[in-house]
Amino acid sequence: MTLLDETPETRYLQLADTLAEAIRRGTLLPGSRLPSVRRCAQTHSVSINTVVSAYRTLEDRGLIEARPQSGFYVRSTLPALKMAPQPSGRIEPPADDVLALIDAVFAAQQNPQFTNISLACPQTADFYPGGKLGRMLSSQLRRQPNLIGQYALPPGSLRLRQQIARRAMTLGMLLEPGDITLTHGCMEALQLALRVITRPGDCVGLESPTYFYLLPLLASLGLKALEIPTDPQHGLSLDALELLLNEKRLNAVIVMPTVQNPLGCTMPPAAKKRLARLMNDHQVPLIEDGLYAEIQFGAALSPAVKSFDSDGWVLFCSSFTKTLAPDFRIGWISGGRFNEALRKLKAVSSMSESQLLSETLATFLESGGYDHHLRNLRKRYAAQVDEARALIARHFPRGTRATQPAGGFVFWVEFPAGVDSVALFHQLLEEQICLTPGTLYSPSGRYRNALRLSCCYPFNARYTQALARVGAKACEMSGLPPGIAQDG
Amino acid sequence: MTLLDETPETRYLQLADTLAEAIRRGTLLPGSRLPSVRRCAQTHSVSINTVVSAYRTLEDRGLIEARPQSGFYVRSTLPALKMAPQPSGRIEPPADDVLALIDAVFAAQQNPQFTNISLACPQTADFYPGGKLGRMLSSQLRRQPNLIGQYALPPGSLRLRQQIARRAMTLGMLLEPGDITLTHGCMEALQLALRVITRPGDCVGLESPTYFYLLPLLASLGLKALEIPTDPQHGLSLDALELLLNEKRLNAVIVMPTVQNPLGCTMPPAAKKRLARLMNDHQVPLIEDGLYAEIQFGAALSPAVKSFDSDGWVLFCSSFTKTLAPDFRIGWISGGRFNEALRKLKAVSSMSESQLLSETLATFLESGGYDHHLRNLRKRYAAQVDEARALIARHFPRGTRATQPAGGFVFWVEFPAGVDSVALFHQLLEEQICLTPGTLYSPSGRYRNALRLSCCYPFNARYTQALARVGAKACEMSGLPPGIAQDG
Repeated sequence: MTLLDETPETRYLQLADTLAEAIRRGTLLPGSRLPSVRRCAQTHSVSINTVVSAYRTLEDRGLIEARPQSGFYVRSTLPALKMAPQPSGRIEPPADDVLALIDAVFAAQQNPQFTNISLACPQTADFYPGGKLGRMLSSQLRRQPNLIGQYALPPGSLRLRQQIARRAMTLGMLLEPGDITLTHGCMEALQLALRVITRPGDCVGLESPTYFYLLPLLASLGLKALEIPTDPQHGLSLDALELLLNEKRLNAVIVMPTVQNPLGCTMPPAAKKRLARLMNDHQVPLIEDGLYAEIQFGAALSPAVKSFDSDGWVLFCSSFTKTLAPDFRIGWISGGRFNEALRKLKAVSSMSESQLLSETLATFLESGGYDHHLRNLRKRYAAQVDEARALIARHFPRGTRATQPAGGFVFWVEFPAGVDSVALFHQLLEEQICLTPGTLYSPSGRYRNALRLSCCYPFNARYTQALARVGAKACEMSGLPPGIAQDG
Repeated sequence: MTLLDETPETRYLQLADTLAEAIRRGTLLPGSRLPSVRRCAQTHSVSINTVVSAYRTLEDRGLIEARPQSGFYVRSTLPALKMAPQPSGRIEPPADDVLALIDAVFAAQQNPQFTNISLACPQTADFYPGGKLGRMLSSQLRRQPNLIGQYALPPGSLRLRQQIARRAMTLGMLLEPGDITLTHGCMEALQLALRVITRPGDCVGLESPTYFYLLPLLASLGLKALEIPTDPQHGLSLDALELLLNEKRLNAVIVMPTVQNPLGCTMPPAAKKRLARLMNDHQVPLIEDGLYAEIQFGAALSPAVKSFDSDGWVLFCSSFTKTLAPDFRIGWISGGRFNEALRKLKAVSSMSESQLLSETLATFLESGGYDHHLRNLRKRYAAQVDEARALIARHFPRGTRATQPAGGFVFWVEFPAGVDSVALFHQLLEEQICLTPGTLYSPSGRYRNALRLSCCYPFNARYTQALARVGAKACEMSGLPPGIAQDG
């Protein structure tokens, strides 16, 4: 088959349609790699440029995806999610039954007998350079044996803060080491940020669905939550946010604009820029949770909202727990105009981070091994996410929809009518399978038909069988057969 | 000189008077070791029992002190402190000028050029078994290289909590590992405890003087402080506390009943028992800060208030940062009836502690090296405290008074009239000497004539010269000559 008769403008569209048809028919299977651009150009006797344009078109249509240093892959064929209906706009503390459910999930999470298929705790130690970090830690101990006996003070290791500032540039942020305070993981960064910028009774705007541990955190601080509509692909609705800001109904906002948890989506750069401008114009602080921002699947990293922050109203939080060294629990915050208050609060909240661990991390970052590690991590998570999506397409009831994550290892699944994920959670606990039902991710208990899935586990028989069991149970509940319809 | 004419009952008093006279005249110098009991019995031709009784009498009079495994020493001759006048009973948030002063001290503390003589940050890495812990850490890494890549969950390492429970028995506490949650140092334990048991606007009872970092912590949580009179030797006034509890003016109380910071005093066991009963009877939570409870100078450890806790109203907080591994920053809390709430709050506040560091600590504790280490630490701090007191007796203005610490490495000094420790702080900063003026230790800015001193630094020329400079400046301010009058 050649495309020589076509004009250059239509030729790439013709090629794109041909490939789309091959994907639809199953000639190119989900998860399989497309031929290289050069090979495809030879096969179809077209120019390199035509192939590049065709692949971009397929990417725009959501049929294939580029993986850095690896090529183009056919995406699994789960229908995309549409935005949930607009939340009610009720402003209140997270509901008690949601908090109770979070407790139940947390208790199940601590049982090592249980198979976790949806918690975002990386348990695959082999994904991390533990051996290398261990050797660096031992060598750090030999060089500075006194470190264990010394009492560190905030803001923490200068060398590590220098490395963090250097790396922040890859997300478009120009930070000084002095702008950064080390924290005990990202969780403490979020906690300190909330304590600095809010007072009990304040109202905090959240994505819907949102990171579920924020809900007991807000409750513990006497804060109210307001859910802001969030598009499963493009993130927070800025129109809705602007309305709320104009009505002065928010004292602070927390978002995950890059690789959102639980949706997996990333806001387009233009939306991030508008978000930063909105917050600065209204002088309302924005907590930007950038925990997964370095695990983006796209070739170029989407910049942080903080990179567009004009007057210091954005507090950027992140950590190395999900990307490099879960057990070190070292996170950081750069809080713009709140930096001094943050540093003081860190001192009286938990003082400082271990110098030994911080300096070891700094050595690792200085060695340049981090970028190499991140490339591998992205590739592996991208492959695992796709594998999980393929399993869902096979085992979950017809009509199931899912988000296509832009990075990280979690995504969001919505069941067809008749499936209650809270009931599913309780039933599967008896089979020692631990789920996170959708209601966890909403202060008002929405999303009872949804589920977050996590791919940070080894893809062994235990995991895949557990996923198949969830599918079987859901089919039983809904009365629908397994397998996604081609028409979505 | 023999005492053969005396009856046994009076013989030991005669011997005690003889020795007291020798101390008064300077024949036996402060800090010097008394002859052993056997040698003294030979010298004075009396029985062993008589010498033991004489030494006990001198100990009761505050003239000598027993140091475990070491013998009896002449105490330095600083006059004892009397209880400060009763605080005003005002209930309010910590004063802004006190908080500003704490910030200034904290900033000075972070400058490595400055000589610290009064901050309780152990900088003497050689006091800690860093080498041994380092080797255990390396061996832990070899045994479990995957630990770095694993995501720990609260309440934290079971092995470490087992060891903590075992050791808690030395302070009279019967705890289960399940009663214990690991925290990021004692500071986080205090912070979590306050957040669990109070709400903004509540009033917290504090010792006067108190641990100064509590003040910005209370302020950050919107809490008010009420100072409770505290005896420099016997600690918190329970009569005053009972009055306040009867009047229902306290929502919570924080105390350091064993080796108080900054006074160095320990409450008698009977008082601790009464304190526990008072709190349980009134059902008001008590946070017991036991940070220095394992660095007691006496032969037997005074029990924790928690050991008398009948209904779980006492929350015991401690840490290994001051006793074993400052850089590991691992602390713990056992919160009685608040345990479950504490564990949940820990999860959403900063998640967990490093398993690698926790397991290393557990190995060290299991090895039995800790008791040996603590014995050395107590001996060294006891000697350094006495040396510092001797330097004060030499260099500080006549009329200076000081507490005699029951353990730890801090104690409290009160200057005679005319010395303003805040002015002293600012003046000595210019000479790069960092003090902690007494006003830091009171939410209402009392104790402007006082100072906390710390002996956790190497006693080198830099430290002793800095101490002498403080004395010289204080003499200048007060117009008094240096040297303590014999009559106190």
